[in-house]
Amino acid sequence: MKKLLISPLLSPVSTEVFFGRGLLSLDLFPKNAVIIADEKAAEMYGKNLASRLNVPLLNIASQKSKENCEKIYAFLAQVNADRHTHLIALGGGSVCDLAAFAASTFMRGIPLILVPTTLLAMVDAAIGGKTAIDTPWGKNLIGSIYFPKAIIVDLDTLTTLPEKEWLNGRAEILKMGLVFDPSLWNQCLDDDLILKAMQAKISVIERDPFEFGLRRILNFGHTIGHGLEHLSKNEMPHGMAVALGSLAEAHLSMQVGMLSQKEFDQIKIPYQQFPLALPCGYTRKDLIESMKHDKKKRGDELRFVMIEEIGKASSFKGLYCRYILPNELNATLDWMEVFYTEDTSRIGF
Amino acid sequence: MKKLLISPLLSPVSTEVFFGRGLLSLDLFPKNAVIIADEKAAEMYGKNLASRLNVPLLNIASQKSKENCEKIYAFLAQVNADRHTHLIALGGGSVCDLAAFAASTFMRGIPLILVPTTLLAMVDAAIGGKTAIDTPWGKNLIGSIYFPKAIIVDLDTLTTLPEKEWLNGRAEILKMGLVFDPSLWNQCLDDDLILKAMQAKISVIERDPFEFGLRRILNFGHTIGHGLEHLSKNEMPHGMAVALGSLAEAHLSMQVGMLSQKEFDQIKIPYQQFPLALPCGYTRKDLIESMKHDKKKRGDELRFVMIEEIGKASSFKGLYCRYILPNELNATLDWMEVFYTEDTSRIGF
Repeated sequence: MKKLLISPLLSPVSTEVFFGRGLLSLDLFPKNAVIIADEKAAEMYGKNLASRLNVPLLNIASQKSKENCEKIYAFLAQVNADRHTHLIALGGGSVCDLAAFAASTFMRGIPLILVPTTLLAMVDAAIGGKTAIDTPWGKNLIGSIYFPKAIIVDLDTLTTLPEKEWLNGRAEILKMGLVFDPSLWNQCLDDDLILKAMQAKISVIERDPFEFGLRRILNFGHTIGHGLEHLSKNEMPHGMAVALGSLAEAHLSMQVGMLSQKEFDQIKIPYQQFPLALPCGYTRKDLIESMKHDKKKRGDELRFVMIEEIGKASSFKGLYCRYILPNELNATLDWMEVFYTEDTSRIGF
Repeated sequence: MKKLLISPLLSPVSTEVFFGRGLLSLDLFPKNAVIIADEKAAEMYGKNLASRLNVPLLNIASQKSKENCEKIYAFLAQVNADRHTHLIALGGGSVCDLAAFAASTFMRGIPLILVPTTLLAMVDAAIGGKTAIDTPWGKNLIGSIYFPKAIIVDLDTLTTLPEKEWLNGRAEILKMGLVFDPSLWNQCLDDDLILKAMQAKISVIERDPFEFGLRRILNFGHTIGHGLEHLSKNEMPHGMAVALGSLAEAHLSMQVGMLSQKEFDQIKIPYQQFPLALPCGYTRKDLIESMKHDKKKRGDELRFVMIEEIGKASSFKGLYCRYILPNELNATLDWMEVFYTEDTSRIGF
């Protein structure tokens, strides 16, 4: 087992990260706790863990809705949770985001332990303190920045991960390779790569936990990606949306003259393993409308993270994002609409 | 005009505090903003301010309910707010707490400006970064710690404050005198006292913004106070509840041998101006049940802040609260049930 420490600037809480195999059976969990798990994780690990620790378990659908958030509040009140009760969130990225939001707001914050059981949640959702609820007006529109006390990454939970879920996680690792750490780019996926991807994200968010600048690079691929995800009524898996968005935003970086054609051609290669398909009923107008929910926007103007080469996002004097002219965006969408098929059967949703 | 700066430990945001008269007409407000005001403040100041700044105004009932919070989210989405839009909360403590919670969670936090228009909100709710929503399971059960960018205290807004509201604010100033600053105790209420009460709270919350210890002293009077408020179905004004709670918890401090009878007799004097009446249908059993919603509890055990003399809360090795034995609490409730009448007509609700 490896142990890391996340100490974000200006955060009252530091996070201990436990990484290895067989961790769910170890004595790493507090007894004064409740477990919130998505349906799959509850079945596979939650019931056992709850019975071993003798703590209450809430099994919840993996939608980050306000209704599910209220179910968590009601559950915490019902089991008489207090400010010292640990909320253990167990499952994929959605339950991690949702339960972390509930933990951050119940009694103004109770201790949180994240136990991600998907690759995407391990390398992305569980790291960085972002919590979220989706709303009719935008994905992750409600949320907070709240650091967990511990993150327990048990690689054994990945043994039953479906193929689609591996691709989801891979999309975020590729993105991290594009914007920050070229040694993550297009590597063979093993335990070591997972650890390195986590460390890369930790190193970004420790320096800028509240997203005043550098942290924005993690949004690369997410402006177009979230737009597509929203268009699909959240049926497109997040990782797929990020893959589609990353490649398109790499194209946009080339379009505005930041990235070379040669580098872009390199970037395309690993994305061939993804089903590059637009959501059913896609129109450009709807996509642009959807993208207006992006949290980087200023007024009605969209801002994008840009890359200069594999492993390097553009700083733009510390802002790490810039406006894009409509004709630049349109040129990329022209390309995307040809390059990505509309055969949604390929994308598995 | 006086200007103070609040710099809480480990907070990414510092707060500028503007204090004086005529401030609502000054150029202290950003133009990229929305105003959320309670009904009275909207009528008296909000409409003028919104029209002068040419920004949208949402007029909201002064209940800290989740429904009102959702109205604020919907309004922010509808007026196309982004992460740079300032939320100006204008009114009493409830709208300050509620709108601040919405600001702290919309897009994971947008800049917040508090403009308290009641004495209670000036000396208490607006200072310290606590945001809150009431739930069926407890008052302020959902919330966050989120510091505003600015607090604008215009004393001119107090000119139309009803008598009951003055008493509400006075209860929090007296509490601050009991636990921290004896020079606030039982003084004539003027501009200078308001400023000193704000400064006392600032000095506590700067040292312990996340309530790991010292900040707990501000909860003096609130364990019994919130219990009574909850019993009254939130019809008892917060300040009245704090007055009733403070005097009862001073009695409890005497009961456990921390405070002398002589000091307690002194403490009783200013509380004679308050209508010391229990909520309609009060029973001890219900009060004890209500108090279990208190956020200082551990499991089912209630913890109380205690005072040793006027101006000094007990440290209890830095915990600033302690368990109370049932017989100690019962002795104080015996006294309270005799000393406080049940004539609710006196209390004005």
